[in-house]
Amino acid sequence: MAGTEDRELESPLLERSDGVFGIMEDEDDEPSINTRADAIKYRWELNYQEAAIYLQEGENNERFETHPQTQDALPAYLIVHNIWFYLIELFASILIMALALCEAPAVDIFEVTEYVHGSLELFGLSIIALGLGMKLRWLGWKQFFTHKRTAMKAFCLFIMYLEAIVVIIRQASHFRVTRAFRPIFLIDCHFLGGVRRVLRQIFQSLPPIVDMMVLLFYFLIIFSVLGFYLFAPVADNSYFSTISDSIISLFVLFTTANYPDVMMPAYHNSRWSVIFFIIFLSLELYFLTNLLLAVVYDTFTGIEKNKFKKLFMHKRTGAAKAFRLLCSRKHYGKLSFTHFQGLLRYYRPSLKKHAILLAFKTLDKSESGILSLDEFYDVYEVTRLSWASKRDQRLWFENLLRPLDCPFRCIYRLVTSKVFNVFIYLVIAANGILFFVRTILISHNHDSDYIKEQLSQVTWYDWLFVGIYGAECLLKIIGFGVKGYFRSGWNVFDFVITVSAIFGVLTTIVDTDLYYVVVLRPLRLLRLFKVKKRYRDVLATSYVLLPRLWSVCIVLVIMYYFYAIIGMELFHYLPLENCCQNTSFANYYSNSSQFMEFFYLNNFNDIIYSYVTLFELTVVNNWHITMSGVAEVKGEWSRVYFIVFYLSSMVVVTIIVAFILEAFIFRMQYKYNRGNTTEEKDNTNVNHPIAKNGGFE
Amino acid sequence: MAGTEDRELESPLLERSDGVFGIMEDEDDEPSINTRADAIKYRWELNYQEAAIYLQEGENNERFETHPQTQDALPAYLIVHNIWFYLIELFASILIMALALCEAPAVDIFEVTEYVHGSLELFGLSIIALGLGMKLRWLGWKQFFTHKRTAMKAFCLFIMYLEAIVVIIRQASHFRVTRAFRPIFLIDCHFLGGVRRVLRQIFQSLPPIVDMMVLLFYFLIIFSVLGFYLFAPVADNSYFSTISDSIISLFVLFTTANYPDVMMPAYHNSRWSVIFFIIFLSLELYFLTNLLLAVVYDTFTGIEKNKFKKLFMHKRTGAAKAFRLLCSRKHYGKLSFTHFQGLLRYYRPSLKKHAILLAFKTLDKSESGILSLDEFYDVYEVTRLSWASKRDQRLWFENLLRPLDCPFRCIYRLVTSKVFNVFIYLVIAANGILFFVRTILISHNHDSDYIKEQLSQVTWYDWLFVGIYGAECLLKIIGFGVKGYFRSGWNVFDFVITVSAIFGVLTTIVDTDLYYVVVLRPLRLLRLFKVKKRYRDVLATSYVLLPRLWSVCIVLVIMYYFYAIIGMELFHYLPLENCCQNTSFANYYSNSSQFMEFFYLNNFNDIIYSYVTLFELTVVNNWHITMSGVAEVKGEWSRVYFIVFYLSSMVVVTIIVAFILEAFIFRMQYKYNRGNTTEEKDNTNVNHPIAKNGGFE
Repeated sequence: MAGTEDRELESPLLERSDGVFGIMEDEDDEPSINTRADAIKYRWELNYQEAAIYLQEGENNERFETHPQTQDALPAYLIVHNIWFYLIELFASILIMALALCEAPAVDIFEVTEYVHGSLELFGLSIIALGLGMKLRWLGWKQFFTHKRTAMKAFCLFIMYLEAIVVIIRQASHFRVTRAFRPIFLIDCHFLGGVRRVLRQIFQSLPPIVDMMVLLFYFLIIFSVLGFYLFAPVADNSYFSTISDSIISLFVLFTTANYPDVMMPAYHNSRWSVIFFIIFLSLELYFLTNLLLAVVYDTFTGIEKNKFKKLFMHKRTGAAKAFRLLCSRKHYGKLSFTHFQGLLRYYRPSLKKHAILLAFKTLDKSESGILSLDEFYDVYEVTRLSWASKRDQRLWFENLLRPLDCPFRCIYRLVTSKVFNVFIYLVIAANGILFFVRTILISHNHDSDYIKEQLSQVTWYDWLFVGIYGAECLLKIIGFGVKGYFRSGWNVFDFVITVSAIFGVLTTIVDTDLYYVVVLRPLRLLRLFKVKKRYRDVLATSYVLLPRLWSVCIVLVIMYYFYAIIGMELFHYLPLENCCQNTSFANYYSNSSQFMEFFYLNNFNDIIYSYVTLFELTVVNNWHITMSGVAEVKGEWSRVYFIVFYLSSMVVVTIIVAFILEAFIFRMQYKYNRGNTTEEKDNTNVNHPIAKNGGFE
Repeated sequence: MAGTEDRELESPLLERSDGVFGIMEDEDDEPSINTRADAIKYRWELNYQEAAIYLQEGENNERFETHPQTQDALPAYLIVHNIWFYLIELFASILIMALALCEAPAVDIFEVTEYVHGSLELFGLSIIALGLGMKLRWLGWKQFFTHKRTAMKAFCLFIMYLEAIVVIIRQASHFRVTRAFRPIFLIDCHFLGGVRRVLRQIFQSLPPIVDMMVLLFYFLIIFSVLGFYLFAPVADNSYFSTISDSIISLFVLFTTANYPDVMMPAYHNSRWSVIFFIIFLSLELYFLTNLLLAVVYDTFTGIEKNKFKKLFMHKRTGAAKAFRLLCSRKHYGKLSFTHFQGLLRYYRPSLKKHAILLAFKTLDKSESGILSLDEFYDVYEVTRLSWASKRDQRLWFENLLRPLDCPFRCIYRLVTSKVFNVFIYLVIAANGILFFVRTILISHNHDSDYIKEQLSQVTWYDWLFVGIYGAECLLKIIGFGVKGYFRSGWNVFDFVITVSAIFGVLTTIVDTDLYYVVVLRPLRLLRLFKVKKRYRDVLATSYVLLPRLWSVCIVLVIMYYFYAIIGMELFHYLPLENCCQNTSFANYYSNSSQFMEFFYLNNFNDIIYSYVTLFELTVVNNWHITMSGVAEVKGEWSRVYFIVFYLSSMVVVTIIVAFILEAFIFRMQYKYNRGNTTEEKDNTNVNHPIAKNGGFE
C-alpha cells in the first residue's frame, strides 16, 4: 500500500476489463469502502495482482483464460499457485510413484501390507485431488474438461482411487497396469516444466520417426522373407527356420545384438551368404538409422525454433495484458514507477526496493521516467537479473590500507602467474601417474584382502598431494577473496574436487573398511582437462546442457517406470534360473556351469530389478537373451513387450542424440560468432575469477 | 583450324606470358613458319591448349605450376592426361591390389605360384612407374619431391619393386606388411577424386576426434582403476581381476559388446554395483560418444564449407589464367567466340558446334557478342550442360498428324490419371500381401526340399502381377514416349524393377534350381514408397547421396585392405577351431557342442575371410570374442590390432554418420528454402516425365 502515493490517485484505465476480479460494475456502483481514494487503491491492488498472474501465465506458457473468473475463486487460485503447495504436490506425486517399491512384487526391505500402501496411496491421491478440486473451483466444469492434461489427470485419479480402495478392501493386489500411468501426476507438477517440454518435443517428433520406422520395418520384413527363403533350407540354421524366427532374428540383427552369430551357420554353409548380411546391415543400420537420426534432428531443431518463437510471443502477450491493467488514466499507454512497483510486489515478492528501481531504470531505455509497452516487454528478463555493486568487481584487498594489502597482492600475483598454474598441473599429472602405477603394482597380487589392505593405506605422497591441493586452494581463496574465488565455475569445480580428496584421505584413516572412497581419488585428474581449449568447451557445454539433460533423465525415469510396472505385472517371479535348457542361450541362465552368467538376475521381480533390466535393454547388447529367456518361460508373445520397449527407448535415445548434437553445435556456432578475439581472451582468462556465463567460459 | 577466321588475324595479347609453351620470344624473333598468318594461328593454338590445361587444373584442384614448362615435355603431359592412360593406370592399381587374392595366404581358387603373382606385380608396378616417370619429365626433380603425394607414391613404388623382385628370387613370400600400402596407387588415380576428398576430410577431422578420444580414454582408464578396486575383491569376477583385464573389459563395455555380461558377477554380489555401470555407460556411451559425433559434425561441415570456397576460388583462378591467354590485342580484356571455340576444341573435344554456340550465348549475359572475365567464370558449369531442343519437351505424339495421335493421347491421359496410379499401387500392395501370406504358409513346413519346390513354382497370380506391371510399363512408355519416360528417375526405377521381376519369373521357369532369384520379387514393393512425400524425400536424398556414399565405400574398402593385409601377415592359419578351452567363450569356437557358433570362421586365412572378419568387427557386436580367440592363440598383444582397428572404424563410421546427417539436413533446408509452392508441385508431379534434378524430385 505504501507504493500508491497521493498524487497517483487517478483511477486505473482499465477496470474489470475482461470481467475478471470485478467488484465494481462502474463507478456509480460504489461499494462499502470508506473513501474514494481507498476504493481506487483497492482497485489498483486487484489490477496488480491480476497483472502479476498474467505475467506468470506468460512465463509458464499457460493459457490466459485459465485463471480465476470470479473474486471468490481467487483464494483457491492463490493457494494452488504457491511454492508450498507446489512442494506438497511434488511430494505427493513422488510418494505415489515410490509406492511401487512396497507394492507386491516389493523390494524386500520396503515390503508392507496392502493396508499400509493402500492408505498411503489414498493419502497421496487425496492431495492431488485437493489441488485438482481447487482448480475446478476457478476453471469451471467446461474449461476443466477441455483442458486435456487436467481432464486426463482427473480420469487417472478417479481410476486409481477406485483401484486403491479395491486393494484395501480385498487386502490383495490385483493385475494393476494402471499404475503405469502414475507418472502423469509428476509430469503435471509445477517444477517439471522442462520435462513437459521434452515430452512435447518427443511427441511432436513422433510422426517423422514413425514414418522412418515404417520404412525400417518394411525392409526388415522384405529381408526376413528373403532370409527365410535363402537360409531355411540350410541345415541347423535355427535363426531362419520359420518366417517368425527370421523376423525376430533380423530385428535383433538390426540392433546388432546377435551379430555375427546369426550369420555363422549360413556363412559356414556358403561364403556368399555374407552378402545378404552386409547389404542388410549397410542399409538398415548404417543408412536408414542415420537417416532416422537426420530426420529427428531436423524435426527437433524445427520444433525447438517454433517453440521458442511461440513462447516468446506468448510472453509478449502476457506482458501486454499485464501492461493494459497497469496503465492509469493520466499516463495513457504508459506505465509509471509506482504501478511497476505495485506489480512487482505480487510478481516477484522477493525483490528488494533498489532492485525494483534498477529493473525499472534498465527497462526505461528512453529515460523518460515512464515505460512504454515496447520497453515493458523485457520485464521477464530484467526482473530476474541480480545486481552487484561496482565495488565488488575490484579485488577485495584493494579496500585495505596501503601496507596491509601488500602480502595479498603478492599472493594474487602468484596464483595468477603461469608458473604457478603449470606447477599445479604437473603435480596433478604426477599424482595421476603415481596413482596408476600403484594400481598396476597392486594388480599383480590377486588376493582380495591384500587389495583392500593396500587401498586403506594412506602413503606419505597421498598426504603431500592433498597438502599441495589444499594449499593451492587456500592461496587462491586468499588471493581472489572468497566471493571472487567462487564466482568462477572452474574454481568451484576445483574446490569441490579438493575438498572431496581431503575427505577421501581422512575417512580412510578413520575407518579402513571405507576403502570405497578410493573412487574420489582420480577425480582430481579431471582438473587437467582445463588445459586445452576444446576440453574447456566440452566441459562448459556439459555444464550448460545439465539442466536440460536432467529433464531428459527424468523423462527416461518416467518411461522406465511405465514399462517397469507393466513388466512387473506381466513377468514377476518368473522361474528364470536354470531355464531354457536345450536352447543356444541356456548357459546364460544356468547357475551351475563353469562360467556363470547370472542372467536370471535380469528379471522383473521388483521395481529396482526392473529398472536395471530396462537399462540393460536400453544399452541393447545381449538384450535378446533376456527377451528369449522370458519368451521361453512365459510364452512367445512376451517378445512384443521387449520389442515395443526397444522401439520406445530407440526413440528416446535418438532424441537424446539429436538434443546433444543440437545443443553442442548451437554453442559452437555461438562461440564462433563471438569471434576469435573473445576466444583469445578465454585462453588467458582461465584462472581469472571474474567471468560471465555462470563462470564457465 | 577452321575457327580462326581471317578477320581475327590479330595476334594474341599474351604470348608466352609465363614462359610456358614458348617458341617465340617476341615478334621479331619469327620462326621458320611460312607466313605471318600461319605463325599467329600457331601461336593461338598453343594458347588454346594451355588455356584448356589451366581450366582442367582448376577443375581437378591441381596446382597450376604442375604442367609442362617446356615444349618437349608436352607430349608426355598429354599422354598421361588422357582417358586411356587413366584407365590403364586404374587397371594397374586394381591389379596390384587384387594380387592379395592369389598371394599366400591365397583364396583357394586363385592360388598361383610366387613366380606368377610376382611377375604380375612387376607388370602392374611398371605401368605405374611409367606414368610417374612421365610426370617427372615435366615436373622436374624438385617439384617431383616437394609434391607430397607423388613423392610418397615413388617411395612406395621403390620398396614394392624391391620386395616383388625378392619374392621372385626367393620363390617364397616373406613378412610383407608393405602390401598394406598398395591402395596408395588406387587413391592417386584420376577417377578417384571423390575418394581423395573424403580421405582429406577424414584426416582434417582427425585432430578434434583425437582430442575427444583422449577424453574418452581418460575416463576409461579412471573407471578401469575404479572397477579394479571395486570388483577385483569380488570372487569369480574375471572381468576385473587385474588392471589390464579391467581396461579391456571396460573398453569392450564402451562398445556395449559385453553388456550386461560384464556386470553380472558384480551385480550378483551386490545390487549397488549397477550404479558404476550406469554412470560409466551414461558418461562414455551416451554423452561423450555423442559429443564426439557433434564435434565431428561441426568440424566436418566447417571443412566442407571451406573446401567448397577454396575449390571455387581455385576454379576462378584457373578460368582467369585461361582467359588471359585467350584475349586478343583487338578486344582488350574480352574474349571473342572464335577463341572460345578454339579453347573448347581442347577443353571439351566431344562438344558439338551448336553446343559450343549455346554455351557461348549462355555465358554472354550482357549479349554483347563478346565475353568479359566475369562472364567467363561460369565456363565450367555451362560447358557441362546438355541441350535439348524445345520440341523434345512436348509430348512425342504431338508431332503426329491429327487422327493418328488420338489413341496415344488417350493412353497418355490414362497413365497420368489418378485412378490408374491408385490401381497400380493397390495391385502392388495386393502382390506384397500375397507374397507374405504365401511365405507364412510355406513357413509351416520345415522341410527344405518343400521350400525349394514351392519357390520354384510360378503360380497363376505371379503371371498376373508380372503381366500387369509389364502392361503398365508399356502403356507409360507409349504415353510418354521412350525419351520422355526415361527422363524421370522414378520411371527408370519402376522400369528396372519391372524388368527384373519379369526376369525373375522367366529364370524360374528355365531352371528350377535358380530359386535364388526369388530375391527379386519383393523389390516391386519398393514402388509403394513413392506414395508418401517423406519417403520420396528419403529416396531422392539417397539418390543424391549415392556418388559420395560410393566414395565413402571405396574408402572403407581401402581401409579394410590395409588392415586385412596386416591381419593376414600376423594371424593367418591360426588354429582357432576348438581353441580357448576353459575360457568363457569356448563354445563359440567349439566344433562339437550342441549349438555350433562357427566363430573359427572369423579368421584371417585369406583376403575374403579377412574382409568378412573386419566387417564383423565394424558392426562391433561380439567383436571381443573374435579378439579374445586370436589373443588366446597368438598372444595378448594381438588385442592391439583389434583395438586400433576398432578406433579407425569408429572414426570412419562417425564420419559416415556426420556425412549422412549433413547431406540430409542440407537437402531438407534446401527444399524448405524453395518454399511450399514447389513442394505442392512435387506432389502432383510424381508421374510426370519431365522433371529437373536428375529426374528425382
